[in-house]
Amino acid sequence: MECTPTFLRARRPEHKQQRYDAIRAAARALAVERGVRSVSLGDIAAAVGVHKSAILRYFETREEIYLSLGADAWSEWNRAVHAELDGVVDGSPRLVADVLSRTLAERPLLCDLLTQAPLTLERHVSTSALRSFKVELLEAAESLAELVGRVVPEVGPERGFDVIGALACFAASLWQVSHPSEELAALYAAEPELARGCPDFVPAVHRFTLVFITGLIATED
Amino acid sequence: MECTPTFLRARRPEHKQQRYDAIRAAARALAVERGVRSVSLGDIAAAVGVHKSAILRYFETREEIYLSLGADAWSEWNRAVHAELDGVVDGSPRLVADVLSRTLAERPLLCDLLTQAPLTLERHVSTSALRSFKVELLEAAESLAELVGRVVPEVGPERGFDVIGALACFAASLWQVSHPSEELAALYAAEPELARGCPDFVPAVHRFTLVFITGLIATED
Repeated sequence: MECTPTFLRARRPEHKQQRYDAIRAAARALAVERGVRSVSLGDIAAAVGVHKSAILRYFETREEIYLSLGADAWSEWNRAVHAELDGVVDGSPRLVADVLSRTLAERPLLCDLLTQAPLTLERHVSTSALRSFKVELLEAAESLAELVGRVVPEVGPERGFDVIGALACFAASLWQVSHPSEELAALYAAEPELARGCPDFVPAVHRFTLVFITGLIATED
Repeated sequence: MECTPTFLRARRPEHKQQRYDAIRAAARALAVERGVRSVSLGDIAAAVGVHKSAILRYFETREEIYLSLGADAWSEWNRAVHAELDGVVDGSPRLVADVLSRTLAERPLLCDLLTQAPLTLERHVSTSALRSFKVELLEAAESLAELVGRVVPEVGPERGFDVIGALACFAASLWQVSHPSEELAALYAAEPELARGCPDFVPAVHRFTLVFITGLIATED
């Protein structure tokens, strides 16, 4: 990772912004490389080239850094899906499944954070950091829900939220399952019948989304 | 927790079995009380009333203890669902959703382990422990899949596996989301509109299962 700290303590506003951005960029790069679970605050500080205490001037904990990246990842995913679907009228469940599964798989940090947020990150931050995260996440999820409900009119915005919620839950688990440890990957290679519960991420998320939307349309509420 | 160690080191086979059972019982009780994530090997040893090294004669790591409890939890859930559905002919998707969601919610340790297994437990055990877990889990999942596919003949055994896989993934995430930290629960109580992404576990799992089975039946493969 490129890292050239040109000041020891950021005092001027532009230096503060620069350092803030550098911390987030380092945290993101490390998480994409080895998974959120394996990155410590010390790792992030080392990658930025500063002491841990310098990080703590900007974020309370490593969890707050990743929650802030998680909120941004939701917003950015929302914009990407809008960019593809905004002009579509009377789209099919299959089209929505195509776009949602592909754009999600293109965002490995978001996929990893879907599990990490409720499991660990939301447990080690202040209420104000939690609140910011929830507000931004819900805004993105509701915007995606409205879009799905508009593109497939039989779904509607209210049940569009069910689609996004179910997809986020399913994809969160499947991301962890479909990215096994080296030992487990070796076991699956040696005994492929044991890998039945470990499908490839994109086709499994695609099929899930298609089946779930189809089921919503066919279920009387 | 009741705990009366009557021997310092278990040497006779019946004592070994007794200690093995005591370790698992303590690990289970602690996990149900405070969540798998918050239980260390030291906590388990303290609850059994022995030193950590005594535990390591039976299990490689705390993760192996919980994987073995996870395998048993899958098998036991499978038996419970069979007990309710074995005699049913031409059952409805709704009946299957009723039984699966209720029996799952009655097993909080299983729900917690659904997330913990791929995320952490499968990463800190030997290949042989991993293999035992996967074999037992798949046996239970395939038996449940066959049952679902038989009770709802339009689903069939192959797609019964899709039901169990999707349910396990969805419920794993939802269990964590629907059991927030104290801080987050307080935030939800103060600002209920922020809790939109945090539904109650049983009705959400029930509806999910019903929608997914309905979607499978309506989707052409």
